[in-house]
Amino acid sequence: MSERFDAVDIILTKRDKGTLSDGQIDWVVDAYTRGVVAEEQMSALAMAILLNGMSRAEISRWTNAMIASGERMDFSSLSRPTADKHSTGGVGDKITLPLAPLVAACGVAVPQLSGRGLGHTGGTLDKLEAIPGWQAGLSNEQMMQQLEDVGAVICAAGSGLAPADKKLYALRDVTGTVEAIPLIASSIMSKKIAEGTGALVLDVKVGSGAFMKDVDRARELAQTMVALGTDAGVTTVALLTDMSTPLGLTAGNGLEVTESVEVLAGGGPADVVELTVALAREMLQAAGKTDIDPADALRDGRAMDAWRRMISAQGGDPDARLPTAKEQQVITADRDGVLAELDALAVGVAAWRLGAGRARKEDAVQAAAGVQMHVKPGDAVRAGDPVMTLHTDTPERFDRAQEALVGKWSIGDAGASHDRPELIIDRIS
Amino acid sequence: MSERFDAVDIILTKRDKGTLSDGQIDWVVDAYTRGVVAEEQMSALAMAILLNGMSRAEISRWTNAMIASGERMDFSSLSRPTADKHSTGGVGDKITLPLAPLVAACGVAVPQLSGRGLGHTGGTLDKLEAIPGWQAGLSNEQMMQQLEDVGAVICAAGSGLAPADKKLYALRDVTGTVEAIPLIASSIMSKKIAEGTGALVLDVKVGSGAFMKDVDRARELAQTMVALGTDAGVTTVALLTDMSTPLGLTAGNGLEVTESVEVLAGGGPADVVELTVALAREMLQAAGKTDIDPADALRDGRAMDAWRRMISAQGGDPDARLPTAKEQQVITADRDGVLAELDALAVGVAAWRLGAGRARKEDAVQAAAGVQMHVKPGDAVRAGDPVMTLHTDTPERFDRAQEALVGKWSIGDAGASHDRPELIIDRIS
Repeated sequence: MSERFDAVDIILTKRDKGTLSDGQIDWVVDAYTRGVVAEEQMSALAMAILLNGMSRAEISRWTNAMIASGERMDFSSLSRPTADKHSTGGVGDKITLPLAPLVAACGVAVPQLSGRGLGHTGGTLDKLEAIPGWQAGLSNEQMMQQLEDVGAVICAAGSGLAPADKKLYALRDVTGTVEAIPLIASSIMSKKIAEGTGALVLDVKVGSGAFMKDVDRARELAQTMVALGTDAGVTTVALLTDMSTPLGLTAGNGLEVTESVEVLAGGGPADVVELTVALAREMLQAAGKTDIDPADALRDGRAMDAWRRMISAQGGDPDARLPTAKEQQVITADRDGVLAELDALAVGVAAWRLGAGRARKEDAVQAAAGVQMHVKPGDAVRAGDPVMTLHTDTPERFDRAQEALVGKWSIGDAGASHDRPELIIDRIS
Repeated sequence: MSERFDAVDIILTKRDKGTLSDGQIDWVVDAYTRGVVAEEQMSALAMAILLNGMSRAEISRWTNAMIASGERMDFSSLSRPTADKHSTGGVGDKITLPLAPLVAACGVAVPQLSGRGLGHTGGTLDKLEAIPGWQAGLSNEQMMQQLEDVGAVICAAGSGLAPADKKLYALRDVTGTVEAIPLIASSIMSKKIAEGTGALVLDVKVGSGAFMKDVDRARELAQTMVALGTDAGVTTVALLTDMSTPLGLTAGNGLEVTESVEVLAGGGPADVVELTVALAREMLQAAGKTDIDPADALRDGRAMDAWRRMISAQGGDPDARLPTAKEQQVITADRDGVLAELDALAVGVAAWRLGAGRARKEDAVQAAAGVQMHVKPGDAVRAGDPVMTLHTDTPERFDRAQEALVGKWSIGDAGASHDRPELIIDRIS
């Protein structure tokens, strides 16, 4: 045997609550990527990590081993600093769309490598693909050129970044080992560090529509990721933000593009504007631009100009009419009052079932499908007013979408108090 | 999807310390055997079971599902009752060899399906294969006929019994999930119950040379297995026995056959005789023969007659000279005193390295290799006396065998007290 380490020994170490050595971690991640450590061995190790945890040093080493499994990008030759944002995923979370051009308009380049959606949370690339002509795939050279010319790129991550993570994520997905903070944190941070951004702002979602349902686990994840970024020399900040109700008034690909353009035009829902500006401020500050107020760039149209250039540079027509769904169904209020609750997960599942999301990686999504909300929690409604409109090209999907929403929204008395959670719950740096 | 259950849901249930339903257990064991549940899913589940445990009801259902994965034998047409013995494995544990003919000589049939050794514990079939001509493979019909004619069979388990266990055991072996009591207990008991024995006596070993190093875990395993047997209608009893030092004076295939024949001839080491008779008594009692003393059958030669018939029936020559090793190396005492300690695991590893055991299933073993002990803990020695003789056909193996023994045996002062543990620690019924 030419291998210095043994997969079973490594599994036993973590199974028995021990600490993995640097050598063990480097070897197991590399050997797994090469196929020397079998899928069933890595899944046993992942379950042991999920149940027994990892120290900060172990997570940091694991992250570095995943980065070392692939290529590492370098933006240091650009004429401006770089900053990126990562969201752990939520319902109606279109923030990347207005945020990237807004930050670019303020002089910081945004190299945003994104993915497609799976399950009830949408993917940024799926949203942008609702724009006729827009292309997600860019070469590294095209990406560099666009960052220099436009200042913002949102494109598909190449397969060369952290291939160990790609393989491990697919395994975790089918083995019940997704929800391990060490593995979530190292998965996200390995890709973001390999991507080569100089600064990183994390939007860690908390609530029914988020991956993390409770604030303590979300805070632990945020702290872990901030530590990993800091260890790797990337200025990293995290915001914990509410995901108990959808962000904005839309969940669905083309619907969210339309809402994003409204925000860039100076309008749009207050919560989307608030979070976009807050994250932009964090990104600028992390990139060393502390004297610029992004709200100005949103107000005076510079962010919209950057958006139009960013979309055009990737073949999209910023003036094109977005596709509309063939069929609509309206859900109305049955009494006067105030919208007391509108559950994020339920809206996400409804949009997914209408065709906005996919159950398997190889599925296609509908550009126009989704849920349009007419009111947000706290807004007054009258009996008969529309609360939501469901959009789809395939009306046989309405029934299951409606099912997802049953009991998941409610109207309360006009006088009763309604707790609206703070949008930005905490900041971790 | 035509499946009513989902592998990931089942993993999540056990991961989150829940209880698996009967339907989930039946489905996952069956679907794994059919290849519908992937190896990496079963290994994550096995790790979750190891770390979070299973209730008695879950273990019982899991065992039944493994039995249902294959054929079930039936000895009810035999003219006499059946009883079997299973040992969890130890160093120098040749007890099955004298025990099966001894019990047969007392009127109870012994259908002993055995395996080959892996690692530092030898396999019963490997030992018997040291006898020229002896064959481990019998058809079910041959086995029935021999049980009727001779009353004892020791042969290889067919692949039809509990195939789920065969597949799962191979997986556990490479994923660090062997040491889970629910999985150990269900693995052993599924095979023994499917084998169709009417009564079962378990020899659960405790100590350095055993799978279970501490008595509490061994007791838990024994209790779990006794409960499983009882639930399945098999009269089941367990003895906890010491494995801190080897059983008898030999560890190695042919060496152990020779020692077993000495016991059948009325001699042999006291501990081997004691355990053989104790287990025989338990088997006879469990099979309803409470009035027979097996010590008589050992003394008067009936057990030896049964041995000769059993070996002959499977093509072996009971009078054949067993092979002797090409090379020997003697380890001597360096002072006068009393053998204070002789570690079971060290002797097992030494015998394995000399060629008596195998590292991988496909390896061959040497019939004559092993460790012959000249004294047992508590015996007096003089400087220069032989303590052990190492036997092998491949002298390049001596160095690594010697290494295994360094610091693992010691000579104490003649006057000092030496704790000799009880051979039979406890009885669980």
